[in-house]
Amino acid sequence: MEITEPTLCVYYVSKALALAPFSVRRNSKGVLDIRRSVMFSVYSASLCLLMVFLTYQGLLFDANSQMPVRPSFRMKSATSKPGLVVTALDVSVVVFACSAGVGCGLWGYRATRELNTRLRKVDDSLHSFSNFKRDRILAILMLGLPLIAITSILGLDLSTWLRFAIEMRTPTDDTELNVQWYIPFYSLYFILTGLQINFANTAFGLGRRFRRLNVMLRSSFLKDVDSSQKHVSLKPLITTVKVVSQHPLALHQSLSKLTHVPTQDTAKNKVALLRLLEENHESLGKCMRLVSNSHGVAVLFILVSCLLHLVATSYFLFLELLSKKDSGMVWLQVLWIIFHSLRLILVVEPCHLATVESKKTIQIVCEIERKIHDPILTEEVKKFWQQLLVVDVEFSASGLCRVNRTLLTSFSSAICTYLVILIQFQNTNG
Amino acid sequence: MEITEPTLCVYYVSKALALAPFSVRRNSKGVLDIRRSVMFSVYSASLCLLMVFLTYQGLLFDANSQMPVRPSFRMKSATSKPGLVVTALDVSVVVFACSAGVGCGLWGYRATRELNTRLRKVDDSLHSFSNFKRDRILAILMLGLPLIAITSILGLDLSTWLRFAIEMRTPTDDTELNVQWYIPFYSLYFILTGLQINFANTAFGLGRRFRRLNVMLRSSFLKDVDSSQKHVSLKPLITTVKVVSQHPLALHQSLSKLTHVPTQDTAKNKVALLRLLEENHESLGKCMRLVSNSHGVAVLFILVSCLLHLVATSYFLFLELLSKKDSGMVWLQVLWIIFHSLRLILVVEPCHLATVESKKTIQIVCEIERKIHDPILTEEVKKFWQQLLVVDVEFSASGLCRVNRTLLTSFSSAICTYLVILIQFQNTNG
Amino acid sequence: MEITEPTLCVYYVSKALALAPFSVRRNSKGVLDIRRSVMFSVYSASLCLLMVFLTYQGLLFDANSQMPVRPSFRMKSATSKPGLVVTALDVSVVVFACSAGVGCGLWGYRATRELNTRLRKVDDSLHSFSNFKRDRILAILMLGLPLIAITSILGLDLSTWLRFAIEMRTPTDDTELNVQWYIPFYSLYFILTGLQINFANTAFGLGRRFRRLNVMLRSSFLKDVDSSQKHVSLKPLITTVKVVSQHPLALHQSLSKLTHVPTQDTAKNKVALLRLLEENHESLGKCMRLVSNSHGVAVLFILVSCLLHLVATSYFLFLELLSKKDSGMVWLQVLWIIFHSLRLILVVEPCHLATVESKKTIQIVCEIERKIHDPILTEEVKKFWQQLLVVDVEFSASGLCRVNRTLLTSFSSAICTYLVILIQFQNTNG
Amino acid sequence: MEITEPTLCVYYVSKALALAPFSVRRNSKGVLDIRRSVMFSVYSASLCLLMVFLTYQGLLFDANSQMPVRPSFRMKSATSKPGLVVTALDVSVVVFACSAGVGCGLWGYRATRELNTRLRKVDDSLHSFSNFKRDRILAILMLGLPLIAITSILGLDLSTWLRFAIEMRTPTDDTELNVQWYIPFYSLYFILTGLQINFANTAFGLGRRFRRLNVMLRSSFLKDVDSSQKHVSLKPLITTVKVVSQHPLALHQSLSKLTHVPTQDTAKNKVALLRLLEENHESLGKCMRLVSNSHGVAVLFILVSCLLHLVATSYFLFLELLSKKDSGMVWLQVLWIIFHSLRLILVVEPCHLATVESKKTIQIVCEIERKIHDPILTEEVKKFWQQLLVVDVEFSASGLCRVNRTLLTSFSSAICTYLVILIQFQNTNG
Repeated sequence: MEITEPTLCVYYVSKALALAPFSVRRNSKGVLDIRRSVMFSVYSASLCLLMVFLTYQGLLFDANSQMPVRPSFRMKSATSKPGLVVTALDVSVVVFACSAGVGCGLWGYRATRELNTRLRKVDDSLHSFSNFKRDRILAILMLGLPLIAITSILGLDLSTWLRFAIEMRTPTDDTELNVQWYIPFYSLYFILTGLQINFANTAFGLGRRFRRLNVMLRSSFLKDVDSSQKHVSLKPLITTVKVVSQHPLALHQSLSKLTHVPTQDTAKNKVALLRLLEENHESLGKCMRLVSNSHGVAVLFILVSCLLHLVATSYFLFLELLSKKDSGMVWLQVLWIIFHSLRLILVVEPCHLATVESKKTIQIVCEIERKIHDPILTEEVKKFWQQLLVVDVEFSASGLCRVNRTLLTSFSSAICTYLVILIQFQNTNG
Repeated sequence: MEITEPTLCVYYVSKALALAPFSVRRNSKGVLDIRRSVMFSVYSASLCLLMVFLTYQGLLFDANSQMPVRPSFRMKSATSKPGLVVTALDVSVVVFACSAGVGCGLWGYRATRELNTRLRKVDDSLHSFSNFKRDRILAILMLGLPLIAITSILGLDLSTWLRFAIEMRTPTDDTELNVQWYIPFYSLYFILTGLQINFANTAFGLGRRFRRLNVMLRSSFLKDVDSSQKHVSLKPLITTVKVVSQHPLALHQSLSKLTHVPTQDTAKNKVALLRLLEENHESLGKCMRLVSNSHGVAVLFILVSCLLHLVATSYFLFLELLSKKDSGMVWLQVLWIIFHSLRLILVVEPCHLATVESKKTIQIVCEIERKIHDPILTEEVKKFWQQLLVVDVEFSASGLCRVNRTLLTSFSSAICTYLVILIQFQNTNG
Repeated sequence: MEITEPTLCVYYVSKALALAPFSVRRNSKGVLDIRRSVMFSVYSASLCLLMVFLTYQGLLFDANSQMPVRPSFRMKSATSKPGLVVTALDVSVVVFACSAGVGCGLWGYRATRELNTRLRKVDDSLHSFSNFKRDRILAILMLGLPLIAITSILGLDLSTWLRFAIEMRTPTDDTELNVQWYIPFYSLYFILTGLQINFANTAFGLGRRFRRLNVMLRSSFLKDVDSSQKHVSLKPLITTVKVVSQHPLALHQSLSKLTHVPTQDTAKNKVALLRLLEENHESLGKCMRLVSNSHGVAVLFILVSCLLHLVATSYFLFLELLSKKDSGMVWLQVLWIIFHSLRLILVVEPCHLATVESKKTIQIVCEIERKIHDPILTEEVKKFWQQLLVVDVEFSASGLCRVNRTLLTSFSSAICTYLVILIQFQNTNG
Repeated sequence: MEITEPTLCVYYVSKALALAPFSVRRNSKGVLDIRRSVMFSVYSASLCLLMVFLTYQGLLFDANSQMPVRPSFRMKSATSKPGLVVTALDVSVVVFACSAGVGCGLWGYRATRELNTRLRKVDDSLHSFSNFKRDRILAILMLGLPLIAITSILGLDLSTWLRFAIEMRTPTDDTELNVQWYIPFYSLYFILTGLQINFANTAFGLGRRFRRLNVMLRSSFLKDVDSSQKHVSLKPLITTVKVVSQHPLALHQSLSKLTHVPTQDTAKNKVALLRLLEENHESLGKCMRLVSNSHGVAVLFILVSCLLHLVATSYFLFLELLSKKDSGMVWLQVLWIIFHSLRLILVVEPCHLATVESKKTIQIVCEIERKIHDPILTEEVKKFWQQLLVVDVEFSASGLCRVNRTLLTSFSSAICTYLVILIQFQNTNG
């Protein structure tokens, strides 16, 4: 996970949700130093285990009670087996996703450290094109909106089931207790949402940096060509290079080449700048692979949970529409469908953005190559082109599927097919 | 959308159909100048909203009347719910597609302006290979045929339903009114057809320009090699370059290099010409992305509507064939299937053409590279090859699916699968 | 279609089957000269139309007779409709494939001429690596085996149906006549088989030439490097070049460069040879596109017919296995399944071979580049590499799907899914 | 199959299981010399034929007995036909996979020889980065674990069926004999497991070598650049080169260039080292193609058997869960599902590893290119980049599907769809 100044709020919430068992301190140079925290590791592991234990306990309590709240537990006949299997899968996939998320934190210390070291270097290079304030506001929005959404939808869900439970209450059986036993399961949804925010924040951060790299590349090399034709000074480029060189954390290597910028000729500066951008692009690509490797399993479970919940909720919505028992239930299902769709989009969109931005770079490099006539620079641009041609910045869920917008098409098609088969069965049966 | 001289008729019809809220004037240099028109923006938005409101109103009127015309409204039992859902989806997808189309016009001013500026530049460069008359005839055909088709099919549809309504008429209930309430929905089909013509015209225009670029590339560099071996003068090339340079709107940059053509040596001219073509190819690629970004959502809804209508209409045709009630209805369904298929092809084919033509360029460049031995030219050709290798001219519906002929295969396969499942259900049930 | 000396037998059979309305004469230089033949064009068109007319006539005769032979015509109830639709599709897809094949011949004169001109040039260049005798034997085998297979399977089919018809014969109705009316439909299968042989022969010819080009490339450049290290004379290469240059039909361009081979130095010869191979590779790629464009629609219908027949026949086989009426019928269905599978493989395998061989070239070129140190040759090899990187030799059925082995996977998966759905329906119903 | 020192145990077990009819002797230079062994060829062929014959015999015995053990043989009605077909397919696919595996051994002598010659050369070059002990332990684990798993699962299966058979025993019919007739079929599973271990060992060996090549590339060129900046000696590189050059089996070509390493300048050494790695990378790519070609059909049958067994076993598990007859049977089915999943992963993972490692090389080469400024070395790196760009190291099952992790996604999706359709049918029927 990304732990940088503008997105610290995401880190603190993740920590509370057992997803980031690290301790972060600002060292003497003002840089955030990430260390493994034993205390929070214990906290994460025990919270996760407790929640999972209570969730299954609650499920068993409801299943074994005389008057279960879940409709799928009420039908004791053999034909209700598929419903039971779906409920068990439904809960288990959330449990697995949360456990994988907590595991990412516990075993992902090295990946997190390397990721943040790389990100800091890239941020230092792209310093003049970043916008600290907007990044912070975006991080707060990205954190707040999903948490508010899940809180309200869980509240609505609980109150609806409580209403049902009170209606079903018999003198001998207190059905409200059954509903209260579902609270651990519902609290797992907070961990799941936190995990998704955490992942989206990291992936979105990478996409944002790729975009800034593109902006810097375009402003340094393409505008510059136009301006040199108009005999205007190279101010913007030099400022950029200066900022990079003056920043205390810039790459040692680039520093040594860039500090004597104003005294040397422009072409050499440009080659150095280009090399810096090459390194940054590759570093960001490596960050993508790091995130992909460390979060792959968690994202896989998140995707499976989205697919399963979307199919199941759509099917239940359809059954509710047929039976017309309770309009509150219908709206609850609609809200859940919207929530799961947004959850899916929260995974897919940041990955899509990063991929798209990283692929734009080669187009810009081609444009630069066309406009530049300096032989040394041309040679360097050709190297950059070669590197970009083989770059493959795509988030993949453990290599099983690539996370980009075409995944939405596959999911839509799968959901449609399953719904058609399931609904037809309902019609044939009932 | 493309707004150029030969395709002005498409623009005027789009304007009438609320899809192009722009004002176009010819400025002093004879160039079309596109501005946002507030009056037509208001007209577009209000027409769209009114139509959508009346469509749903008409649907509700029919659904709530005692003797609905739509068969899916007549069955009030629980099992008719899927039919209702299909009808709602059926109408909504057309409404969404039209709204997205109108939205493309309202929020697509900048994209339209940039697109047309780029197209004009490209047209100026490829001037000698364009054919004004044939373009205009094609635009008129592309506009006329779909509009005639939709008018006649809607007329036939309305008359068939009217005939049904009159048969069903009871003394207390005037069923003809129900049919009349469907007129707003049917008029949405005109907007939808206009949107598709508009999009097809733009995509086809890009494909046509890619083809002209290929023709120019081949005639300037490949024929020339043959002719130089036969010691024939370079007339065709020089004419081309002259036309480009004399045209008042050609790129400033290319102008400055090309005006003194006859005095300088041929190789330099050729490099300049090649660079011009490189820029044009990239510019057309950017146009494709512009269209893709601005029309993505609209095209997505158009594709979904095609898929849904093809499945639904085929299924209804099958039911009609089984019941053998009315042969007029059977033929109407067949016509609708043909219409929706053509609608799908109207989206897919222009995109396919543009993609195919843009991919041909690199083959030609390889051929040129093989035949040319001038070192400077070779270097430039290699740059062009590098640029073309990473070019990705493909229309994508919001990144969810790529619009090319393989989409037809996916659609056929999906339609077959859904029909087999649905028809089997019909047989099991009835 | 390919019309060359070793495969003339395929041409003559295609001509008899209305697929090749050309006249071929050997001109003064001993080269086959292809011309459009008006007489055979009329023959092709009329034969095709007559067959199609008689086929539908025979189908209608059986459907309207009191005691139809086809089981799907016997059930007059509403539920037999799907069977009727399948029978109609079954026949129509064969009719369409044959018509498309005849159309390929009638409108494919230019493509055939260009294809054969290119093939002749390539053959002349690769002369020393071709094997006339083996090519002829392969062509005869490729022609004979499918024709024998279709003849025997049609004979078996007819005799089985005749046996059924005689069993069903009533005093008033002569059911044998119904079976005889199916003869036109069965004779269409000969045209279809001819079309497939024709296509397979052409595609296989392209693959064979790509393989020879690879062999020549490897023997001229890779063995040569080894031999030069062992100080052995360059005999094989020079022989090759000599053969090319002495052959009266070799490319003019290459001739002028190659005739003074023994006097000039080796590197120059090698560059010339490499350029010849580059041109041949590109020419073969263009041939593939030519065949793909001219035969696309026919291949599409052939593929659809394979898919439809495989699904239908497997389903009928399953029904026969359930009813256990007649073991002869079961074996007939098994034979048909095998025949249609072989038909599918006859389309896919030659295309697969051509694609695989054309993709091998770039691997060889990389190996050559690694072993060669002459700067001029290196430059030429790099050009070849650039050309090969963008080459895309794949047969595509009108752009709807690529014809290679993965198509077999898609078909297997589709057939399995449809069979599972259909058989489940059968079980639910009966 | 790979026959090297560390994995000799896999070879001996394969030989016993009729999969490796070779004789291996250590020649005078201490190198393993592989020869075709006529005796073991006869042993392999006859064992395979005998097992297949006995398997079908046992199946027929059970099917024809009065009280069959297999539930699918007990239902003699027409509706049990699909069950029979599934059982036949179930057994046949294992038979085909084993036969294909034995065939790979019988006809794969040349491929095995070439593969091992290439591997030995690569091993000699990468000598300093290999780890003999760890390789041997991994080979023993890879051999032992699957064999233990299949032994215990088959034991459990047999004992469960024996328990059933004893329960069903009638005075006239000895049902235990039926179960004993299944032993030949079960012993086929040992051959199948041996085949999979064999294949996994070979593919994993290739992946391991690609990884070592990457490590060597990185340590020789990237660390070296850092160290040269820190003015540290080139020891690690020289040691590597020395080891390569001193080893008696290293490539002749590379030897001649590398022996005078310490006397010549570093750049020349590096070029030679790079060329060696280029050749090794290409050689490993060719090994992958060799394995792919020789084992393609066997892997295809293994994959089909995994898919079929996973669908069938999941379906039977579901039926068992519904009937709740015997919890031992439920656990047996769960174990079988786990076993077949592991079998699938045993095929996919080694191929995935090899592909991923082979694709990493180009990223490292790009990094090297960026950091190196020597013109000769740059030229060589560019050649390597060109070679790597077109490399396609992916295992393909006879060209029908590529074996990598996305296959797992396709399989999951197919299994889900089939299960939903089958379970729905079960519910509709019963």
